[in-house]
Amino acid sequence: MKEEILRMLCTHRGSYVSGAALATQLKVSKVAIWKHIQALRGDGYSIESRRRRGYRLIAAPDLLLPYEIGRELQTKFIGRKIFHYWEVNSTQKVAKELAMKGAEEGTLVVAETQGAGKGRRNRSWYSPKGGIYLSVIMRPEMSPSRASLMALLTGVAAAKTIREIYGLKAELKWPNDIQIGDRKIGGVLIELAAEAELVNWLIIGTGLNANIKKASLPREFRVTTTSLEEECGRKISRVNFVRKFLERIEQLYLIFKRRGEAPILEEWKNMTNTLGAWVRVEDGETIEGKAVDVDRDGALIVKLADGTTKRIVAGDVSLRRKRCGHTA
Amino acid sequence: MKEEILRMLCTHRGSYVSGAALATQLKVSKVAIWKHIQALRGDGYSIESRRRRGYRLIAAPDLLLPYEIGRELQTKFIGRKIFHYWEVNSTQKVAKELAMKGAEEGTLVVAETQGAGKGRRNRSWYSPKGGIYLSVIMRPEMSPSRASLMALLTGVAAAKTIREIYGLKAELKWPNDIQIGDRKIGGVLIELAAEAELVNWLIIGTGLNANIKKASLPREFRVTTTSLEEECGRKISRVNFVRKFLERIEQLYLIFKRRGEAPILEEWKNMTNTLGAWVRVEDGETIEGKAVDVDRDGALIVKLADGTTKRIVAGDVSLRRKRCGHTA
Repeated sequence: MKEEILRMLCTHRGSYVSGAALATQLKVSKVAIWKHIQALRGDGYSIESRRRRGYRLIAAPDLLLPYEIGRELQTKFIGRKIFHYWEVNSTQKVAKELAMKGAEEGTLVVAETQGAGKGRRNRSWYSPKGGIYLSVIMRPEMSPSRASLMALLTGVAAAKTIREIYGLKAELKWPNDIQIGDRKIGGVLIELAAEAELVNWLIIGTGLNANIKKASLPREFRVTTTSLEEECGRKISRVNFVRKFLERIEQLYLIFKRRGEAPILEEWKNMTNTLGAWVRVEDGETIEGKAVDVDRDGALIVKLADGTTKRIVAGDVSLRRKRCGHTA
Repeated sequence: MKEEILRMLCTHRGSYVSGAALATQLKVSKVAIWKHIQALRGDGYSIESRRRRGYRLIAAPDLLLPYEIGRELQTKFIGRKIFHYWEVNSTQKVAKELAMKGAEEGTLVVAETQGAGKGRRNRSWYSPKGGIYLSVIMRPEMSPSRASLMALLTGVAAAKTIREIYGLKAELKWPNDIQIGDRKIGGVLIELAAEAELVNWLIIGTGLNANIKKASLPREFRVTTTSLEEECGRKISRVNFVRKFLERIEQLYLIFKRRGEAPILEEWKNMTNTLGAWVRVEDGETIEGKAVDVDRDGALIVKLADGTTKRIVAGDVSLRRKRCGHTA
């Protein structure tokens, strides 16, 4: 209902819409309309009201509402169907449930804040207001062994979007971090259901620190993370970011389907900070070496001190750039 | 309740258990006990009843009841928890739901008959009484790219069990068929939920034509399939097969965890009918060539007529053995 009212106010932006007209259109009482207007003001909308003229939208907060994202979205299928939540346990969880029920490819789940946001390996993902939390349902006809490529593809889409809109040098740390300099600004989580050789559905999850002030972060994150607001020195339009990001994902996904992994890996290599770096990888055991390449499935190839190479499929990577000069 | 009564009758096999004793033990009326005894007779149990002495189990049908399978099962974790269904839509579906709710590794779902049994790619799996339909929940710490190896492992377990108990030359057709000669006797279905690099849970599904008469099959299956009963010329003990099969799966799985894919692939290669054969693979496009190897992820390597090789991850394979002499 709130959204219906907003849609009408937006349509007549600049002019007044009478409470009576809203009430008639939406088949509720004028008092009900007034209550929803109050709720919208509570959400941050600035709405003027005048006797005998009605309501007028003055300014909208930057909310990821379906009709905000959808209005100028240049995609064929991603984000054509949007589920928006003011608060949700996790967009990823909602998207998985929708996928199981048969939701179509491109369905987007987006939330203003998450109560139990998730990162890789069931780690929690701190999700205050101002961040961007979204999950997209995909149904690629591919083997589950290709899922890591979808993580790299999503990272490329995020980094390109950040570079283009804000001119910031976003970089990608294998396997799924988006960084500015040494600080994490976002992450990607891919989850899937599959048969041994065929993906049934695959969820692209992304969390991004957009309009979040460093001072508002828990102490333990302040050194290791940053946000678009901190890097730009101003609040950014989350709606605009989401639109461009979805467009990039779709574009890269269509390229991936048509031409395979090579163009995706090439773009990834151009934006990663991991290749060429001395890395430590933790995955049960710990190994150190120089990250020299990624293979066609997105696995990281690390050259150890003894000259042998190791193929890393999963793990947590930390960069040890200073030691890089000491090795080949 | 039926199961509790059966358990007591089995414990006192050969002698009588009074209706009063059963009623007291199970905290129901003697009439209720009598009704359950009637139901058990309906299931095929032969139970004698005598005035003043009670009930005595004469013969049990070959049902896959938890305490039948569990009684002599030599495993550490597979089949330690069993969900048995007289009829179910699909054991795979039930197992997936249990896995999502956190069921532990090794949990077995087994059914006497399935209303909507599933094969690969959502194909239906004909599931009359007398067959074996089971799903095992696994939680391997591995990449989803290794899922195909679990399919091969399960096939090896099934073929070895058939060879050992019945002396039949069971063979494996890539990727997931169990055959006797040119006829299919069973199949494997692997389904999983995962992050890009890490399996969350993985379900091993198997359907096997055990005590099914060819004449009872739909006409279209009679030429292409067979059953243990047809091949052995007598009904076999399904309970015994399931026990040995679960033991084999566990044994191979522990080897796989400890030593990797090499020993599994070696056993698979010894029992496949696909390597060395001229094959046609359908997966969107159709290719023909000689199947020469499987790689470390279980993908099939096919040598085409022009001498190039192709790596097949998914697809339907048909064998063209007669043409084999013309190639390589």
